[in-house]
Amino acid sequence: MTKKSPLAPKNIPTLLPLVGTELGTAATAMKYHGRDDLLLISFANGATVAGVFTKSECFSAPVGWCREIISKNRKARAVLVNAGNANAFTGKAGDHAMASTIKTVSDGLSCDLEEIYVASTGVIGEVLDADLVNQFILDAKNNLDENNWEKAAKAILTTDTFAKMATRKTQIDSNVITINGFAKGSGMIAPDMATMLGFIFTDAAIKQDVLQTLLMRITEKSFNSITVDSDTSTSDTVLLFSTGEGDEIGDIDDPRLDDFKEKLADLMLDLAQQIVRDGEGASKFIAIEVTGAENDGAAKKIAMSIANSPLVKTAIAGEDANWGRIVMAVGKAGEKANRDALLIKIGDQKVTEHGMGVEGYDEALCTDHFRGEEVSISVDVGIANGSSTVWTCDLTHDYITINADYRS
Amino acid sequence: MTKKSPLAPKNIPTLLPLVGTELGTAATAMKYHGRDDLLLISFANGATVAGVFTKSECFSAPVGWCREIISKNRKARAVLVNAGNANAFTGKAGDHAMASTIKTVSDGLSCDLEEIYVASTGVIGEVLDADLVNQFILDAKNNLDENNWEKAAKAILTTDTFAKMATRKTQIDSNVITINGFAKGSGMIAPDMATMLGFIFTDAAIKQDVLQTLLMRITEKSFNSITVDSDTSTSDTVLLFSTGEGDEIGDIDDPRLDDFKEKLADLMLDLAQQIVRDGEGASKFIAIEVTGAENDGAAKKIAMSIANSPLVKTAIAGEDANWGRIVMAVGKAGEKANRDALLIKIGDQKVTEHGMGVEGYDEALCTDHFRGEEVSISVDVGIANGSSTVWTCDLTHDYITINADYRS
Repeated sequence: MTKKSPLAPKNIPTLLPLVGTELGTAATAMKYHGRDDLLLISFANGATVAGVFTKSECFSAPVGWCREIISKNRKARAVLVNAGNANAFTGKAGDHAMASTIKTVSDGLSCDLEEIYVASTGVIGEVLDADLVNQFILDAKNNLDENNWEKAAKAILTTDTFAKMATRKTQIDSNVITINGFAKGSGMIAPDMATMLGFIFTDAAIKQDVLQTLLMRITEKSFNSITVDSDTSTSDTVLLFSTGEGDEIGDIDDPRLDDFKEKLADLMLDLAQQIVRDGEGASKFIAIEVTGAENDGAAKKIAMSIANSPLVKTAIAGEDANWGRIVMAVGKAGEKANRDALLIKIGDQKVTEHGMGVEGYDEALCTDHFRGEEVSISVDVGIANGSSTVWTCDLTHDYITINADYRS
Repeated sequence: MTKKSPLAPKNIPTLLPLVGTELGTAATAMKYHGRDDLLLISFANGATVAGVFTKSECFSAPVGWCREIISKNRKARAVLVNAGNANAFTGKAGDHAMASTIKTVSDGLSCDLEEIYVASTGVIGEVLDADLVNQFILDAKNNLDENNWEKAAKAILTTDTFAKMATRKTQIDSNVITINGFAKGSGMIAPDMATMLGFIFTDAAIKQDVLQTLLMRITEKSFNSITVDSDTSTSDTVLLFSTGEGDEIGDIDDPRLDDFKEKLADLMLDLAQQIVRDGEGASKFIAIEVTGAENDGAAKKIAMSIANSPLVKTAIAGEDANWGRIVMAVGKAGEKANRDALLIKIGDQKVTEHGMGVEGYDEALCTDHFRGEEVSISVDVGIANGSSTVWTCDLTHDYITINADYRS
């Protein structure tokens, strides 16, 4: 692992056990050495599962498999994740390799093939070495433990520089409910989805369709509202598991879910923002809020146009308050904007209004704001009431260094 | 001007005089010192004019003016261009500054305001200093000369590292026809349009509507088929002037235009490719051909997705034949692609077919190809017959260096 991102959270949360969820890791050394790179998760009594996946036309073998089995609405019994090889664009050979590892998990945990979810992350285009993985699945199984959250979060990392974890407590009726989650992702991050894997677990008892709707809605404002470099992976996967038994909540508008929804959204945004904080080469964490757009979708498109603009990202990296580039990015988004009503703020300071620079605005204040690690830009485009906030990082020399030589 | 791009053409063409077109330059020092930065072009007998402009919602004052007067279908008598200040996002103050410079040209050349085209390129958000420009318009007028092509091409540059010129000869009936053109652009280059200014001149006699249609059609496959960094300027302008008198060709399908069309397309592609060759920080010139798409538009979208992918561009900069990133970029384009029929070639070598890596392909050959200055990638997505070729450059440390500190 390279030097930890300067934007990494200062405090690492402690994830407490969730009844019915055990995690085990192992080190196959398929690419990374001296660390775990294989994760097996077991739900002894099964878990209800919801999932969202990459929209890439060139999705990986694991994404194809997960999509297929999730449609059957069965309980999940296990998850197998490896880091270092994405098993994407590997044709039938990739499918066979994956099937072989699924079979090994099925034998080891005595469950059906279609109860096993898989995710792979790493280099595209190389077939997964199934023999190697199979050999270490037993290791991971022997290490299954309900306390292994941090080990699990670390085992799935690739170019990440820190493990991304979050936890929240809430209550449903008189039951204290826990939500734990971890994620990985650092480059190739953009909707839909961010190049990432995310795994979220709760001991709430919730029906599958409610779980699925919640996951999709919240993903839109969390994992799908971040971008590092506009590139989208072949392997993006977020899975949400609930192990709670008994009286399942079956109505998404059930008021008993109110606080749970809030906490789940908060946790997912936390994980999504941690991914941005680990953006390849990032030195600044940037929030971009767009208001006044034709609708929320238009606002998001404009916000993403700003967030993905190499010229905006390099200006921020260079701590140069060149707001003309923000105007440019608004203009190119392909959504309605009223040039002569455009209002741009950098931090708390208004820099443009009525379609031109604010007279006597203090560039030094903007430069000061850009010198910090947390940058905020807000833009009102003066059309209607659509709004959206997205998060990104700056584009630095380190991004080039990391990506011009990833495989070697 | 910084160090000349390593991809600059080895030979500089000599542009010969075009009857009725004179060019004069001057040095206002509004931003750049020790070089000309103001260009005045005069058509003593007027010129028929066609134009294409940025699609940005935040277009500059000059773009607004040109769009307005071109719709009136009058002859052009003059063009005024300055480098260093885009006069974009400058509100009414910017309009007034521009109007003042147009008035000065009108007085100097004794022509109507609406016969004068303007273009400004440079920093966004600062009002043009009209007094300064007005003061030097006379200088430029005094220097008007039909031989000043190279001086003109140099006077409009900003972050460019070389002047971009092209010339072609053709024949219409028994007349020898010349086409001369020059352009600028280096960063903020993407359709529609590339952040650029382009000026093309011919002594052919062609009706305005034919000229306009030709310009739009050819722009689509030249200036709108290049990208440096996916950013689109507020000021993009390409103007095509014809000074020929007498029997104007009024039918776009007139066979007498066949060779003219070909030569014009060739010249515009030449200029567009020169812009890519001067892409900020570029060390490789990259051609990306996509075939087998649902239609030509889909092919272009996929080609642009590859061309704008930071991960593809950094892999090429790093001379790393990481074709998995090409698969990723195809997948994220949002257009139909048959994953299991995808065929990718790097240079002459097939690297994938049938949805996976070609067995025994020689990575060393790909790496060798990436080591050269001219890279070609072709992708067949296996759906139908749509095709498109686009051109771009790699993403290097120098891009970051140039753009993280442009204004200072």
